[in-house]
Amino acid sequence: MCRVAVLGAGYMGSAITFPLADNGADINLWGTWLDDDILEASHRGEHPKLKKKLPEKVSLFYSQQLEEAVKEVDFILIAVSSEGFLTIFQKLLETLQTEQPLFTLTKGFVEYDGRIMRIHDAAFDLFKKKFPHENFIWASVGGPVKAVELSNKVPTGTVFGINSPRIQKLLRFFKAEYYRVAVTDDIAGVELSSAFKNVYAIALGIFDGLYGTMKGRLFHNFKALLFNQAIQEMAIIVEAAGGRKATVFDLAGLGDLYVTSSSGRNRRFGEYIGKYIRAEEAYNLMLREGEIAEGYKAMGLGVEFLKGLGNNLLENLPLFRTLDRILFLDKDVSDEIEGFFRRYILR
Amino acid sequence: MCRVAVLGAGYMGSAITFPLADNGADINLWGTWLDDDILEASHRGEHPKLKKKLPEKVSLFYSQQLEEAVKEVDFILIAVSSEGFLTIFQKLLETLQTEQPLFTLTKGFVEYDGRIMRIHDAAFDLFKKKFPHENFIWASVGGPVKAVELSNKVPTGTVFGINSPRIQKLLRFFKAEYYRVAVTDDIAGVELSSAFKNVYAIALGIFDGLYGTMKGRLFHNFKALLFNQAIQEMAIIVEAAGGRKATVFDLAGLGDLYVTSSSGRNRRFGEYIGKYIRAEEAYNLMLREGEIAEGYKAMGLGVEFLKGLGNNLLENLPLFRTLDRILFLDKDVSDEIEGFFRRYILR
Repeated sequence: MCRVAVLGAGYMGSAITFPLADNGADINLWGTWLDDDILEASHRGEHPKLKKKLPEKVSLFYSQQLEEAVKEVDFILIAVSSEGFLTIFQKLLETLQTEQPLFTLTKGFVEYDGRIMRIHDAAFDLFKKKFPHENFIWASVGGPVKAVELSNKVPTGTVFGINSPRIQKLLRFFKAEYYRVAVTDDIAGVELSSAFKNVYAIALGIFDGLYGTMKGRLFHNFKALLFNQAIQEMAIIVEAAGGRKATVFDLAGLGDLYVTSSSGRNRRFGEYIGKYIRAEEAYNLMLREGEIAEGYKAMGLGVEFLKGLGNNLLENLPLFRTLDRILFLDKDVSDEIEGFFRRYILR
Repeated sequence: MCRVAVLGAGYMGSAITFPLADNGADINLWGTWLDDDILEASHRGEHPKLKKKLPEKVSLFYSQQLEEAVKEVDFILIAVSSEGFLTIFQKLLETLQTEQPLFTLTKGFVEYDGRIMRIHDAAFDLFKKKFPHENFIWASVGGPVKAVELSNKVPTGTVFGINSPRIQKLLRFFKAEYYRVAVTDDIAGVELSSAFKNVYAIALGIFDGLYGTMKGRLFHNFKALLFNQAIQEMAIIVEAAGGRKATVFDLAGLGDLYVTSSSGRNRRFGEYIGKYIRAEEAYNLMLREGEIAEGYKAMGLGVEFLKGLGNNLLENLPLFRTLDRILFLDKDVSDEIEGFFRRYILR
């Protein structure tokens, strides 16, 4: 028998219950204070994001029931938004009695201890403050996974960045005919690829918003340059942060950017920008539909994270800087994308 | 003043005349015996593939005028199909008096000296037989370039694999505001990426043919796995053939596969296969419209080329073998693609 707590009832938290349930686990799906509507709808019938019933083995827990949700579980998955991560992780730590395998599907950065940090690093520090002598048993989950497709049991592959054999032994509760799990010890590579692919998917969305409307002319050559540049910049970032380029040149990076730039919220956010809707407006427009363009928030913190890596790293990331100017300095999107080509491509 | 001969008046040969003309070169565009219709139409008005007039600085030469076309030119570009390459290269050598910078846009393999070889290697051998004491000055042109888009002057980047400073000095006749040229000494990496990306674009086309028709369900997760696998296999091939993986993880490989799998003849050929049209039939169907699915022919020779590299290389290329079974053993396309996932992804 196995009981798992999944924290966060959004797309990914809910989708991951399908392979877990198929492997015989009982799942406590806990919703944050923002997930009440989702839980209520799921209780009555379909999960409103995934548009289907959750597995029978899922029990629903409301925000005030965190302690119950994680009680006597074998491991915990965290799938809240990056903005909610620290608050929820701290609440979680209060309820924990001892070390516990922790999996996170949250992507992005947190502001912690006066700095912008990777989620793993902040979680590690908080954990060690409470449990200095226990093991921090961690997996960062990445790779090309659209949640709805996973819940449809479409053939899917994923990468877990892990730090312990205890995690390795638990992978059997994830692995399914339709959900294959690769493993690496490059947690930084997986985590940063996951976060930055959302950012670069916005750039590709912008491109489609901008050039998709110019009927009768195709711009595949240009788009391939952007896609390639995004991958190169992700590799530079990961290496600068102590991860491995090879992680980016595989499922966690190029596989995930491929899928994320094909469809989804960050891509759609980018398309709005490419159609000359301002970033804040596009973000709020989507928020009113209950959709969060996480890459936009990751971007804001991402700039600070990259500055923290020093060595004038940003100088080597012209596409990132272009995106920064479009989203945060409100520069003309067409000028910026064309200027990026003129100034930086193969110069 | 600069005069260039371009051999082959198809998509790429004709498109490359645009940046050359913009850089002030005069261009002798020579058509093979298969290009008569193209030349006649281009003479009267529009190039029938590019659907536009060629630059003023282009002079047209018919198949029997090869000697005139290459007389007193400063360098030569070869842009014929891989099937025509050897014959035309031999004819070209007969007319050459001395060493001459040679650029090739031809992708694929040739049967030479009882083996399947890279185009560069066969050309080198033929050249050295005639000119044992002269320099073989060579560029293999790769990277993500749709010819029509290049002729539309869409922002485009390309990679030249080169072996001589003489080539380097000529790059100014190519480089344009809309056409950026990167350079590498990894000719094998560029050439093999160019050839195999056509092969793997067929696989992605098959995928879209097969899954694009299942309305209401998306399979982006699965497609990302295929795209990623294609890149990994191209990297394995290039390394086994003496090139560098880094070449594949950049414009020449992932940039080019990205664009080639987005649109074009090889992708379209794959889509037919995914809709259960047999390979030979799909090839002929396209041929009747004057379109050649080059990846299909490259695939046939590619298998032999890979076997020649030894070390049971094919065992590490499950997607390639899957494609081989679909195209040449006429296996059920859906079984094969799903079987590929079941048997090989992250196992």
